[in-house]
Amino acid sequence: MALDLSRLRIDPRRLRNHFKALTRIGATPEGGVHRPALGDADIEGRKWLRDRIERSPLAYTDDTAGNQSAILHGRDGDSPHIMIGSHLDTVPGGGRFDGALGVLAALEVLLTLKDAGYSPPIGLEAINFTDEEGTHIGTLGSRAVTGRLTEGDLQHPFQGLPAFDSALARIGLSRKSLLQARRTADRIAGYLELHIEQGPILAEESFDIGIVTAIVGIGRLTLQFRGRADHAGTTPMALRHDAGRAAGVFVASAWDFLPENFPDCVINIGHLRFHPGTFNVVPHTVDLELEYRAPDARQLGDLQRGLIAMAKDVAHECRVAMEMGPAEISPAVSMDSRFQDQFACAANRLGLRHRRMPSGAGHDAQNFADLCPSGMIFIPSVDGRSHGPDEYSHWDDCVNGANLLLHSALEVVETYRHTRTK
Amino acid sequence: MALDLSRLRIDPRRLRNHFKALTRIGATPEGGVHRPALGDADIEGRKWLRDRIERSPLAYTDDTAGNQSAILHGRDGDSPHIMIGSHLDTVPGGGRFDGALGVLAALEVLLTLKDAGYSPPIGLEAINFTDEEGTHIGTLGSRAVTGRLTEGDLQHPFQGLPAFDSALARIGLSRKSLLQARRTADRIAGYLELHIEQGPILAEESFDIGIVTAIVGIGRLTLQFRGRADHAGTTPMALRHDAGRAAGVFVASAWDFLPENFPDCVINIGHLRFHPGTFNVVPHTVDLELEYRAPDARQLGDLQRGLIAMAKDVAHECRVAMEMGPAEISPAVSMDSRFQDQFACAANRLGLRHRRMPSGAGHDAQNFADLCPSGMIFIPSVDGRSHGPDEYSHWDDCVNGANLLLHSALEVVETYRHTRTK
Repeated sequence: MALDLSRLRIDPRRLRNHFKALTRIGATPEGGVHRPALGDADIEGRKWLRDRIERSPLAYTDDTAGNQSAILHGRDGDSPHIMIGSHLDTVPGGGRFDGALGVLAALEVLLTLKDAGYSPPIGLEAINFTDEEGTHIGTLGSRAVTGRLTEGDLQHPFQGLPAFDSALARIGLSRKSLLQARRTADRIAGYLELHIEQGPILAEESFDIGIVTAIVGIGRLTLQFRGRADHAGTTPMALRHDAGRAAGVFVASAWDFLPENFPDCVINIGHLRFHPGTFNVVPHTVDLELEYRAPDARQLGDLQRGLIAMAKDVAHECRVAMEMGPAEISPAVSMDSRFQDQFACAANRLGLRHRRMPSGAGHDAQNFADLCPSGMIFIPSVDGRSHGPDEYSHWDDCVNGANLLLHSALEVVETYRHTRTK
Repeated sequence: MALDLSRLRIDPRRLRNHFKALTRIGATPEGGVHRPALGDADIEGRKWLRDRIERSPLAYTDDTAGNQSAILHGRDGDSPHIMIGSHLDTVPGGGRFDGALGVLAALEVLLTLKDAGYSPPIGLEAINFTDEEGTHIGTLGSRAVTGRLTEGDLQHPFQGLPAFDSALARIGLSRKSLLQARRTADRIAGYLELHIEQGPILAEESFDIGIVTAIVGIGRLTLQFRGRADHAGTTPMALRHDAGRAAGVFVASAWDFLPENFPDCVINIGHLRFHPGTFNVVPHTVDLELEYRAPDARQLGDLQRGLIAMAKDVAHECRVAMEMGPAEISPAVSMDSRFQDQFACAANRLGLRHRRMPSGAGHDAQNFADLCPSGMIFIPSVDGRSHGPDEYSHWDDCVNGANLLLHSALEVVETYRHTRTK
């Protein structure tokens, strides 16, 4: 190559301008961003992105799942793509960095390469996926692309079918069109994503970069403790069957149990629902929403079994019954080990301090892992804040992340072996 | 006296007929009674009672709080009354015995005495109090009679003012008229009440009668644990400030703390409210509704201080903040000791096995204790069930209770010293 690509850097001013412009779309008075998928602000954000790409030297395209892409064509026009993506949508009342930074960094990588006159051996594609946050269906766009979306999945959007259908119609889509966005494995050469950590570890330990080893498996269970409604004044404590007591003891026990037995896992008891829920009636029923995450399938299974056994013991001890709904499992997904090494080498060349770590959150990257090599990097989140207006990452860390994405993409695209034609 | 009153007994068949007739008013398919105060069934029940009294040799009267009375006049026409009462209203979907049995037993006592040709030295009054259960305002009728109702109290009925005003209007009352129902201490010589226990103690220990020593003091507090909303996947357990954990540990600790330190008291944690209350966000705030009951003021104060100190310790341990609303206190009330002895002597004469016990629930009797001697007896509740269709007392126990009420009322009215004229 005639170009000295090793000295290539993204344009921090352009990235900053894009970031600022996007931040204004759906900006909240608290300093965050409210841009739920397919709402007004998200649609405005989509228009902004399309306009920005169309006014650049890159090609614009979108698919029947509403995913939007900028393309830097490969030397072989018909090559599969290395995709670099994330999402512009946010949770309600979310932050400025989650998702948006990944899309803008991907676009910046392509613009930098194009400006440098670089022509990749295969196509590079920066992509904004529809509804990663699950306003309607979580990681909807990346599931559509990778074929991980079934007709059954489309029957149960979080806000119901009428809201989902009318949201899709706003950008000319339908449930049927979503299923047509699938790409086959031979069209995707690999997937890269930059994201904020959304946790405190990198900032606490003064790392510049986290290299994601795996996206944790997530289990969700609703436990129900069932006792008996009794008069809260006339029934001696020893004769009660208090479902609230069982729920309390379960919460306390789970917190004792976890660090000792599953130091690499986390749980959350995000909701308890008391019935009937009044001062003077012993609660007869409590529904408990339990989530548990583990870096691999074995630990996820062990953790689930441990928690269920504990819930049964607690119910027995408190003289109440325990029932549970079906466990919803999102399996743990490993990130490509070659990509992890390439991230590490590129980080070393850029002088960035890095560590490997699992991702405790789900991301679009998880949907690609079965289809192609998939890799992900994190930049530090100040105080681990996320999904709110206090979500913040230092600008230097954003620029470092984008430069690492640039050089990792270059490394990946240059070392890609076109398996089909070889 | 020419009459041999010691052999006098109530008419179980008449009492049974009245009970059956009343049970049909507001009967639910589940076998309970739905007769909330001033609703359709309660108004039908009131009509039934008025009609029943007017067709008897007793005098009917009602007051400006909707309380309905049958009067057996005393030999001195202008004497104060010994009142015997309870209430016909129920909680929504309540049982057949709570309140209704006390009113019908009081009426039966007066009918029995009238039939026997007995003329008491002072008046005897059987009374049905309005809204004991607090559909709008708890123990409304007895508070009105005893002057324990202020204009301020009338501003905050449970279902709001418009519902309260229109309910009152259905029987020709108003908030103003309620305050005019007050009677002065010189018009009330004493108060007696028969009620079901609503707890399991008498049935478990095979007693026929409970003689109430005190109506427990009740405290209510809302505690708020405040931590931080964190991503439930990316935040290590050790760095969380989980308000739900604090609430769970508090529930578990309170259950351990109580029997050891306050064996005569009970608590109830009837409601927890989790915010934001979703699977994947660490709960930042939990509101906890705490109720605690103790048989006297000293224990109620100690218990409250103990629970608050524990909540503070738990908050500290779980690294969250704790705040609380003002405590609502309904003080413990002692029942008259001379009445307790008279109940005991009468029970002995009737061959009824009895024990003294505090009442864990509030009753109309508590409003009389400052004004005049006030006394209360319990009959057993099968399995302690109450406030539901499974509320049940054996008929023999109902009859025993009514006979004890008869002989206690006789003892009280015969030994009454008219303090004003003596």
